[in-house]
Amino acid sequence: MTKEAPHFAEELEELKKRLLFMGGLAEERVRAAVSALVMRDRGRIAEVMSGDASINRLHLEIDDRCFKILALYQPVAVDLRIVVSTVKINKDLERVGDLAVNIAEAAERYVAHEPVKPLIDLPRMGDIAQSMLHDALNAFVSRNVETAEKVLARDDLLDALKDQIFRELLTHLLGEPRKIEPAVQLILISRHLERVGDHATNVAEDVIFIVEGRDVRHQTVDQAR
Amino acid sequence: MTKEAPHFAEELEELKKRLLFMGGLAEERVRAAVSALVMRDRGRIAEVMSGDASINRLHLEIDDRCFKILALYQPVAVDLRIVVSTVKINKDLERVGDLAVNIAEAAERYVAHEPVKPLIDLPRMGDIAQSMLHDALNAFVSRNVETAEKVLARDDLLDALKDQIFRELLTHLLGEPRKIEPAVQLILISRHLERVGDHATNVAEDVIFIVEGRDVRHQTVDQAR
Repeated sequence: MTKEAPHFAEELEELKKRLLFMGGLAEERVRAAVSALVMRDRGRIAEVMSGDASINRLHLEIDDRCFKILALYQPVAVDLRIVVSTVKINKDLERVGDLAVNIAEAAERYVAHEPVKPLIDLPRMGDIAQSMLHDALNAFVSRNVETAEKVLARDDLLDALKDQIFRELLTHLLGEPRKIEPAVQLILISRHLERVGDHATNVAEDVIFIVEGRDVRHQTVDQAR
Repeated sequence: MTKEAPHFAEELEELKKRLLFMGGLAEERVRAAVSALVMRDRGRIAEVMSGDASINRLHLEIDDRCFKILALYQPVAVDLRIVVSTVKINKDLERVGDLAVNIAEAAERYVAHEPVKPLIDLPRMGDIAQSMLHDALNAFVSRNVETAEKVLARDDLLDALKDQIFRELLTHLLGEPRKIEPAVQLILISRHLERVGDHATNVAEDVIFIVEGRDVRHQTVDQAR
Protein backbone atom coordinates (compact mmCIF):
# COMPACT_ATOMS: atom_id res chain seq x y z
CA MET A 1 0.00 0.00 0.00
CA THR A 2 2.90 2.39 0.67
CA LYS A 3 3.79 2.53 -2.99
CA GLU A 4 0.22 3.41 -3.90
CA ALA A 5 -0.38 5.87 -1.10
CA PRO A 6 0.33 9.10 -3.05
CA HIS A 7 -2.04 8.01 -5.83
CA PHE A 8 -4.68 7.21 -3.30
CA ALA A 9 -4.35 10.60 -1.59
CA GLU A 10 -4.64 12.32 -4.97
CA GLU A 11 -7.67 10.29 -6.00
CA LEU A 12 -9.39 10.98 -2.70
CA GLU A 13 -8.64 14.70 -3.01
CA GLU A 14 -10.00 14.73 -6.56
CA LEU A 15 -13.12 12.84 -5.39
CA LYS A 16 -13.80 15.48 -2.76
CA LYS A 17 -13.28 18.28 -5.29
CA ARG A 18 -15.74 16.74 -7.72
CA LEU A 19 -18.33 16.18 -5.00
CA LEU A 20 -17.95 19.78 -3.90
CA PHE A 21 -18.28 20.98 -7.48
CA MET A 22 -21.48 18.97 -7.82
CA GLY A 23 -22.74 20.40 -4.54
CA GLY A 24 -22.11 23.92 -5.81
CA LEU A 25 -24.11 23.15 -8.97
CA ALA A 26 -26.99 21.67 -6.96
CA GLU A 27 -27.06 24.71 -4.67
CA GLU A 28 -26.99 27.09 -7.63
CA ARG A 29 -29.86 25.26 -9.33
CA VAL A 30 -32.10 25.52 -6.26
CA ARG A 31 -31.26 29.22 -6.01
CA ALA A 32 -31.96 29.73 -9.74
CA ALA A 33 -35.31 27.89 -9.53
CA VAL A 34 -36.57 29.97 -6.60
CA SER A 35 -35.28 33.22 -8.05
CA ALA A 36 -36.90 32.48 -11.45
CA LEU A 37 -40.18 31.79 -9.62
CA VAL A 38 -40.04 35.08 -7.72
CA MET A 39 -39.12 37.04 -10.88
CA ARG A 40 -41.77 35.12 -12.87
CA ASP A 41 -39.03 34.66 -15.48
CA ARG A 42 -40.21 31.93 -17.84
CA GLY A 43 -36.91 31.77 -19.71
CA ARG A 44 -34.96 31.05 -16.57
CA ILE A 45 -37.59 28.62 -15.31
CA ALA A 46 -37.19 26.68 -18.58
CA GLU A 47 -33.40 26.76 -18.17
CA VAL A 48 -33.62 25.10 -14.75
CA MET A 49 -36.08 22.51 -16.08
CA SER A 50 -33.77 21.44 -18.89
CA GLY A 51 -30.42 21.93 -17.16
CA ASP A 52 -30.10 18.71 -15.17
CA ALA A 53 -27.54 16.98 -17.41
CA SER A 54 -24.35 18.27 -15.71
CA ILE A 55 -25.46 17.07 -12.30
CA ASN A 56 -26.56 13.73 -13.70
CA ARG A 57 -23.19 13.25 -15.39
CA LEU A 58 -21.38 14.12 -12.15
CA HIS A 59 -23.62 11.69 -10.27
CA LEU A 60 -22.42 8.83 -12.49
CA GLU A 61 -18.82 10.03 -12.51
CA ILE A 62 -18.58 10.32 -8.72
CA ASP A 63 -20.19 6.92 -8.16
CA ASP A 64 -17.69 5.47 -10.59
CA ARG A 65 -14.77 7.15 -8.81
CA CYS A 66 -15.94 5.78 -5.44
CA PHE A 67 -16.28 2.32 -6.87
CA LYS A 68 -12.80 2.41 -8.42
CA ILE A 69 -11.18 3.78 -5.26
CA LEU A 70 -12.77 0.98 -3.21
CA ALA A 71 -11.67 -1.65 -5.74
CA LEU A 72 -8.10 -0.37 -6.25
CA TYR A 73 -7.05 1.00 -2.87
CA GLN A 74 -9.27 -0.81 -0.37
CA PRO A 75 -9.25 2.13 2.05
CA VAL A 76 -9.83 1.63 5.78
CA ALA A 77 -10.93 3.67 8.82
CA VAL A 78 -11.60 7.35 8.13
CA ASP A 79 -10.75 7.03 4.42
CA LEU A 80 -13.29 4.23 4.03
CA ARG A 81 -15.87 6.34 5.85
CA ILE A 82 -15.18 9.22 3.46
CA VAL A 83 -15.66 7.06 0.36
CA VAL A 84 -18.82 5.29 1.61
CA SER A 85 -20.24 8.64 2.73
CA THR A 86 -19.44 10.12 -0.67
CA VAL A 87 -21.61 7.42 -2.28
CA LYS A 88 -24.48 8.58 -0.07
CA ILE A 89 -23.87 12.33 -0.36
CA ASN A 90 -23.67 11.91 -4.14
CA LYS A 91 -27.18 10.43 -4.06
CA ASP A 92 -28.43 13.31 -1.92
CA LEU A 93 -26.97 15.93 -4.27
CA GLU A 94 -28.46 14.24 -7.32
CA ARG A 95 -31.87 14.38 -5.63
CA VAL A 96 -31.36 18.08 -4.86
CA GLY A 97 -30.78 18.57 -8.59
CA ASP A 98 -34.06 16.73 -9.29
CA LEU A 99 -35.84 18.87 -6.71
CA ALA A 100 -34.63 22.02 -8.50
CA VAL A 101 -36.32 20.63 -11.62
CA ASN A 102 -39.48 19.86 -9.61
CA ILE A 103 -39.49 23.44 -8.27
CA ALA A 104 -39.08 24.84 -11.78
CA GLU A 105 -41.90 22.60 -13.10
CA ALA A 106 -44.25 23.84 -10.39
CA ALA A 107 -43.05 27.42 -11.00
CA GLU A 108 -43.90 27.09 -14.70
CA ARG A 109 -47.47 26.14 -13.78
CA TYR A 110 -47.61 28.87 -11.14
CA VAL A 111 -46.63 31.74 -13.44
CA ALA A 112 -49.32 30.71 -15.94
CA HIS A 113 -51.77 32.30 -13.43
CA GLU A 114 -52.10 35.67 -11.73
CA PRO A 115 -49.94 35.85 -8.59
CA VAL A 116 -51.71 34.44 -5.51
CA LYS A 117 -49.80 36.58 -3.05
CA PRO A 118 -46.40 38.25 -2.64
CA LEU A 119 -43.81 35.50 -2.27
CA ILE A 120 -41.92 36.08 0.95
CA ASP A 121 -41.77 32.82 2.87
CA LEU A 122 -40.85 30.64 -0.11
CA PRO A 123 -37.68 32.63 -0.95
CA ARG A 124 -36.89 32.52 2.75
CA MET A 125 -37.22 28.72 2.69
CA GLY A 126 -35.02 28.71 -0.42
CA ASP A 127 -32.33 30.75 1.34
CA ILE A 128 -32.38 28.50 4.39
CA ALA A 129 -32.29 25.28 2.34
CA GLN A 130 -29.46 26.61 0.17
CA SER A 131 -27.42 27.76 3.15
CA MET A 132 -27.94 24.42 4.89
CA LEU A 133 -26.60 22.64 1.83
CA HIS A 134 -23.70 25.07 1.56
CA ASP A 135 -22.72 24.68 5.20
CA ALA A 136 -23.12 20.88 5.12
CA LEU A 137 -20.71 20.69 2.18
CA ASN A 138 -18.27 23.05 3.90
CA ALA A 139 -18.47 20.84 6.97
CA PHE A 140 -17.69 17.86 4.74
CA VAL A 141 -14.57 19.51 3.30
CA SER A 142 -13.28 20.83 6.61
CA ARG A 143 -14.59 17.81 8.58
CA ASN A 144 -16.12 20.28 10.97
CA VAL A 145 -18.62 18.58 13.29
CA GLU A 146 -19.76 21.84 14.85
CA THR A 147 -20.80 23.27 11.46
CA ALA A 148 -22.54 19.98 10.66
CA GLU A 149 -24.50 20.09 13.92
CA LYS A 150 -25.63 23.64 13.21
CA VAL A 151 -27.08 22.39 9.89
CA LEU A 152 -29.16 19.79 11.74
CA ALA A 153 -30.60 22.48 14.00
CA ARG A 154 -31.96 24.51 11.07
CA ASP A 155 -34.15 21.72 9.69
CA ASP A 156 -36.97 22.46 12.15
CA LEU A 157 -37.14 26.02 10.84
CA LEU A 158 -37.87 24.74 7.32
CA ASP A 159 -40.55 22.39 8.63
CA ALA A 160 -42.23 25.23 10.49
CA LEU A 161 -42.18 27.50 7.42
CA LYS A 162 -43.62 24.71 5.27
CA ASP A 163 -46.55 24.26 7.70
CA GLN A 164 -47.08 28.01 7.91
CA ILE A 165 -47.17 28.35 4.11
CA PHE A 166 -49.68 25.51 3.92
CA ARG A 167 -52.07 27.06 6.44
CA GLU A 168 -51.77 30.50 4.90
CA LEU A 169 -52.44 29.28 1.37
CA LEU A 170 -55.49 27.29 2.47
CA THR A 171 -56.95 30.52 3.85
CA HIS A 172 -56.20 32.29 0.57
CA LEU A 173 -58.01 29.57 -1.32
CA LEU A 174 -61.33 29.76 0.43
CA GLY A 175 -63.78 31.42 -1.90
CA GLU A 176 -61.20 32.11 -4.62
CA PRO A 177 -61.42 29.21 -7.06
CA ARG A 178 -59.08 30.86 -9.56
CA LYS A 179 -56.31 30.74 -7.02
CA ILE A 180 -56.60 27.02 -6.36
CA GLU A 181 -54.19 25.68 -8.92
CA PRO A 182 -51.41 28.23 -8.40
CA ALA A 183 -51.73 27.94 -4.62
CA VAL A 184 -51.35 24.16 -4.83
CA GLN A 185 -48.18 24.71 -6.87
CA LEU A 186 -46.78 26.93 -4.11
CA ILE A 187 -47.61 24.25 -1.55
CA LEU A 188 -45.72 21.70 -3.66
CA ILE A 189 -42.73 24.05 -3.99
CA SER A 190 -42.60 24.47 -0.21
CA ARG A 191 -42.46 20.66 0.10
CA HIS A 192 -39.62 20.47 -2.42
CA LEU A 193 -37.62 23.08 -0.50
CA GLU A 194 -38.21 21.21 2.73
CA ARG A 195 -36.77 18.12 1.02
CA VAL A 196 -33.66 20.07 -0.01
CA GLY A 197 -33.17 20.80 3.68
CA ASP A 198 -33.60 17.09 4.47
CA HIS A 199 -30.83 16.22 2.02
CA ALA A 200 -28.56 18.86 3.57
CA THR A 201 -29.33 17.23 6.92
CA ASN A 202 -28.29 13.84 5.51
CA VAL A 203 -24.99 15.32 4.35
CA ALA A 204 -24.39 16.88 7.77
CA GLU A 205 -25.08 13.51 9.44
CA ASP A 206 -22.58 11.85 7.13
CA VAL A 207 -19.97 14.43 8.14
CA ILE A 208 -20.44 13.55 11.80
CA PHE A 209 -20.11 9.88 10.89
CA ILE A 210 -16.89 10.52 8.95
CA VAL A 211 -15.23 12.50 11.72
CA GLU A 212 -16.42 10.73 14.81
CA GLY A 213 -17.48 7.34 13.45
CA ARG A 214 -20.74 7.88 15.34
CA ASP A 215 -24.07 7.53 13.64
CA VAL A 216 -26.43 10.33 14.62
CA ARG A 217 -29.24 9.38 12.27
CA HIS A 218 -32.64 8.47 13.70
CA GLN A 219 -31.47 9.67 17.06
CA THR A 220 -34.82 10.92 18.28
CA VAL A 221 -36.50 7.68 17.24
CA ASP A 222 -34.00 5.57 19.10
CA GLN A 223 -34.07 7.78 22.16
CA ALA A 224 -37.83 7.44 22.28
CA ARG A 225 -37.58 3.65 22.75
CA MET B 1 -8.60 -14.15 1.37
CA THR B 2 -9.12 -17.93 0.97
CA LYS B 3 -9.16 -18.48 4.70
CA GLU B 4 -11.74 -15.78 5.17
CA ALA B 5 -13.87 -16.67 2.17
CA PRO B 6 -16.53 -18.74 4.00
CA HIS B 7 -17.06 -15.95 6.53
CA PHE B 8 -17.33 -13.46 3.76
CA ALA B 9 -19.92 -15.52 1.86
CA GLU B 10 -21.96 -15.88 5.07
CA GLU B 11 -21.76 -12.19 5.85
CA LEU B 12 -22.81 -11.26 2.34
CA GLU B 13 -25.73 -13.72 2.49
CA GLU B 14 -26.82 -12.30 5.84
CA LEU B 15 -26.54 -8.75 4.44
CA LYS B 16 -28.87 -9.64 1.57
CA LYS B 17 -31.34 -11.28 3.95
CA ARG B 18 -31.46 -8.23 6.18
CA LEU B 19 -31.91 -5.89 3.22
CA LEU B 20 -34.73 -8.07 1.92
CA PHE B 21 -36.36 -8.12 5.34
CA MET B 22 -36.18 -4.33 5.44
CA GLY B 23 -37.64 -4.18 1.93
CA GLY B 24 -40.55 -6.36 3.05
CA LEU B 25 -41.20 -4.02 5.98
CA ALA B 26 -41.07 -0.94 3.76
CA GLU B 27 -43.49 -2.52 1.27
CA GLU B 28 -45.85 -3.53 4.05
CA ARG B 29 -45.85 -0.04 5.52
CA VAL B 30 -46.79 1.57 2.21
CA ARG B 31 -49.58 -1.01 1.80
CA ALA B 32 -50.79 -0.38 5.37
CA ALA B 33 -50.78 3.41 4.90
CA VAL B 34 -52.85 3.30 1.70
CA SER B 35 -55.24 0.68 3.08
CA ALA B 36 -55.76 2.68 6.30
CA LEU B 37 -56.52 5.75 4.14
CA VAL B 38 -59.10 3.86 2.06
CA MET B 39 -60.72 2.33 5.17
CA ARG B 40 -60.57 5.72 6.96
CA ASP B 41 -59.15 3.75 9.90
CA ARG B 42 -57.62 6.28 12.29
CA GLY B 43 -56.12 3.62 14.53
CA ARG B 44 -54.17 2.06 11.69
CA ILE B 45 -53.19 5.47 10.32
CA ALA B 46 -51.69 6.29 13.73
CA GLU B 47 -49.89 2.92 13.76
CA VAL B 48 -48.15 3.70 10.47
CA MET B 49 -47.26 7.20 11.68
CA SER B 50 -45.53 5.91 14.79
CA GLY B 51 -44.14 2.63 13.45
CA ASP B 52 -40.97 3.78 11.72
CA ALA B 53 -38.49 2.57 14.36
CA SER B 54 -37.87 -0.94 12.97
CA ILE B 55 -36.96 0.36 9.54
CA ASN B 56 -34.75 3.06 11.03
CA ARG B 57 -32.91 0.49 13.13
CA LEU B 58 -32.43 -1.74 10.07
CA HIS B 59 -31.16 1.28 8.13
CA LEU B 60 -28.37 1.79 10.65
CA GLU B 61 -27.68 -1.94 11.01
CA ILE B 62 -27.38 -2.54 7.26
CA ASP B 63 -25.13 0.48 6.75
CA ASP B 64 -22.95 -0.80 9.55
CA ARG B 65 -22.80 -4.28 8.01
CA CYS B 66 -21.78 -2.83 4.64
CA PHE B 67 -19.10 -0.74 6.25
CA LYS B 68 -17.68 -3.70 8.19
CA ILE B 69 -17.73 -5.98 5.14
CA LEU B 70 -15.82 -3.37 3.13
CA ALA B 71 -13.29 -2.87 5.93
CA LEU B 72 -12.76 -6.55 6.78
CA TYR B 73 -13.04 -8.38 3.46
CA GLN B 74 -12.25 -5.74 0.84
CA PRO B 75 -14.49 -7.37 -1.75
CA VAL B 76 -13.91 -6.87 -5.47
CA ALA B 77 -15.86 -7.14 -8.76
CA VAL B 78 -19.46 -8.29 -8.41
CA ASP B 79 -19.21 -8.62 -4.60
CA LEU B 80 -18.04 -5.02 -4.32
CA ARG B 81 -20.90 -3.96 -6.59
CA ILE B 82 -23.35 -5.79 -4.33
CA VAL B 83 -22.08 -4.10 -1.16
CA VAL B 84 -21.91 -0.58 -2.66
CA SER B 85 -25.38 -1.06 -4.16
CA THR B 86 -26.67 -2.25 -0.80
CA VAL B 87 -25.56 1.07 0.73
CA LYS B 88 -27.68 2.83 -1.89
CA ILE B 89 -30.69 0.49 -1.77
CA ASN B 90 -30.67 0.78 2.02
CA LYS B 91 -31.05 4.55 1.62
CA ASP B 92 -33.91 4.08 -0.84
CA LEU B 93 -35.75 1.69 1.48
CA GLU B 94 -35.36 4.01 4.44
CA ARG B 95 -36.94 6.80 2.35
CA VAL B 96 -39.80 4.49 1.41
CA GLY B 97 -40.41 3.99 5.14
CA ASP B 98 -40.46 7.79 5.57
CA LEU B 99 -42.88 8.13 2.66
CA ALA B 100 -45.24 5.64 4.36
CA VAL B 101 -45.21 8.01 7.35
CA ASN B 102 -45.83 11.00 5.04
CA ILE B 103 -48.78 9.15 3.46
CA ALA B 104 -50.22 8.36 6.89
CA GLU B 105 -49.79 11.98 8.03
CA ALA B 106 -51.69 13.24 4.97
CA ALA B 107 -54.29 10.48 5.48
CA GLU B 108 -54.82 11.63 9.05
CA ARG B 109 -55.62 15.13 7.78
CA TYR B 110 -57.75 13.73 4.97
CA VAL B 111 -60.04 11.63 7.18
CA ALA B 112 -60.74 14.65 9.42
CA HIS B 113 -63.00 15.81 6.53
CA GLU B 114 -65.88 14.34 4.57
CA PRO B 115 -64.65 12.14 1.70
CA VAL B 116 -63.89 14.16 -1.45
CA LYS B 117 -64.56 11.26 -3.82
CA PRO B 118 -64.33 7.49 -3.94
CA LEU B 119 -60.63 6.57 -3.80
CA ILE B 120 -59.85 4.40 -6.81
CA ASP B 121 -56.72 5.75 -8.49
CA LEU B 122 -54.74 6.23 -5.27
CA PRO B 123 -55.04 2.57 -4.19
CA ARG B 124 -54.13 1.68 -7.76
CA MET B 125 -51.00 3.83 -7.48
CA GLY B 126 -50.29 2.15 -4.14
CA ASP B 127 -50.55 -1.31 -5.71
CA ILE B 128 -48.27 -0.37 -8.58
CA ALA B 129 -45.67 1.27 -6.33
CA GLN B 130 -45.71 -1.69 -3.93
CA SER B 131 -45.38 -4.24 -6.72
CA MET B 132 -42.52 -2.25 -8.29
CA LEU B 133 -40.70 -2.34 -4.98
CA HIS B 134 -41.44 -6.03 -4.52
CA ASP B 135 -40.20 -6.94 -7.99
CA ALA B 136 -37.12 -4.72 -7.70
CA LEU B 137 -36.13 -6.53 -4.50
CA ASN B 138 -36.80 -9.92 -6.07
CA ALA B 139 -34.62 -8.86 -8.99
CA PHE B 140 -31.91 -7.94 -6.48
CA VAL B 141 -32.02 -11.35 -4.79
CA SER B 142 -32.16 -13.35 -8.02
CA ARG B 143 -29.93 -10.88 -9.92
CA ASN B 144 -32.53 -10.92 -12.64
CA VAL B 145 -32.00 -8.06 -15.10
CA GLU B 146 -35.20 -8.79 -17.01
CA THR B 147 -37.33 -8.35 -13.88
CA ALA B 148 -35.40 -5.16 -13.07
CA GLU B 149 -36.06 -3.75 -16.53
CA LYS B 150 -39.78 -4.44 -16.18
CA VAL B 151 -39.77 -2.35 -13.00
CA LEU B 152 -38.30 0.60 -14.89
CA ALA B 153 -41.07 0.37 -17.49
CA ARG B 154 -43.83 0.76 -14.87
CA ASP B 155 -42.61 4.13 -13.57
CA ASP B 156 -44.33 6.04 -16.40
CA LEU B 157 -47.65 4.52 -15.37
CA LEU B 158 -47.31 6.03 -11.88
CA ASP B 159 -46.41 9.43 -13.34
CA ALA B 160 -49.47 9.35 -15.57
CA LEU B 161 -51.77 8.41 -12.67
CA LYS B 162 -50.29 11.18 -10.53
CA ASP B 163 -51.04 13.77 -13.24
CA GLN B 164 -54.54 12.37 -13.77
CA ILE B 165 -55.31 12.54 -10.04
CA PHE B 166 -54.08 16.13 -9.95
CA ARG B 167 -56.29 17.27 -12.84
CA GLU B 168 -59.32 15.42 -11.51
CA LEU B 169 -58.98 16.85 -8.01
CA LEU B 170 -58.60 20.40 -9.32
CA THR B 171 -61.96 19.97 -11.09
CA HIS B 172 -63.52 18.68 -7.87
CA LEU B 173 -62.24 21.73 -6.02
CA LEU B 174 -63.82 24.40 -8.15
CA GLY B 175 -66.73 25.84 -6.26
CA GLU B 176 -66.38 23.48 -3.30
CA PRO B 177 -64.25 25.26 -0.73
CA ARG B 178 -64.84 22.60 1.93
CA LYS B 179 -63.08 20.07 -0.27
CA ILE B 180 -59.93 22.11 -0.69
CA GLU B 181 -57.90 20.86 2.22
CA PRO B 182 -58.72 17.14 1.86
CA ALA B 183 -58.18 17.31 -1.90
CA VAL B 184 -54.74 18.85 -1.39
CA GLN B 185 -53.92 15.96 0.96
CA LEU B 186 -54.86 13.47 -1.76
CA ILE B 187 -52.61 15.33 -4.20
CA LEU B 188 -49.75 15.10 -1.71
CA ILE B 189 -50.39 11.37 -1.20
CA SER B 190 -50.23 10.78 -4.95
CA ARG B 191 -46.82 12.51 -4.98
CA HIS B 192 -45.58 10.32 -2.14
CA LEU B 193 -46.65 7.18 -3.98
CA GLU B 194 -44.95 8.37 -7.13
CA ARG B 195 -41.77 8.75 -5.06
CA VAL B 196 -42.08 5.18 -3.78
CA GLY B 197 -42.05 4.14 -7.45
CA ASP B 198 -38.94 6.27 -8.03
CA HIS B 199 -37.14 4.47 -5.22
CA ALA B 200 -38.16 1.10 -6.67
CA THR B 201 -36.72 2.35 -9.96
CA ASN B 202 -33.44 3.20 -8.21
CA VAL B 203 -33.28 -0.32 -6.76
CA ALA B 204 -33.93 -1.85 -10.20
CA GLU B 205 -31.16 0.30 -11.71
CA ASP B 206 -28.77 -0.89 -9.00
CA VAL B 207 -29.64 -4.51 -9.87
CA ILE B 208 -28.68 -3.92 -13.49
CA PHE B 209 -25.44 -2.33 -12.30
CA ILE B 210 -24.67 -5.31 -10.04
CA VAL B 211 -25.26 -7.91 -12.72
CA GLU B 212 -23.94 -6.21 -15.80
CA GLY B 213 -21.65 -3.54 -14.37
CA ARG B 214 -23.50 -1.10 -16.65
CA ASP B 215 -24.97 2.08 -15.33
CA VAL B 216 -28.43 2.70 -16.78
CA ARG B 217 -29.22 5.79 -14.72
CA HIS B 218 -29.90 9.09 -16.45
CA GLN B 219 -29.98 7.25 -19.75
CA THR B 220 -32.52 9.49 -21.46
CA VAL B 221 -30.59 12.59 -20.40
CA ASP B 222 -27.34 11.27 -21.78
CA GLN B 223 -28.94 10.04 -24.98
CA ALA B 224 -30.40 13.48 -25.55
CA ARG B 225 -26.95 15.07 -25.65
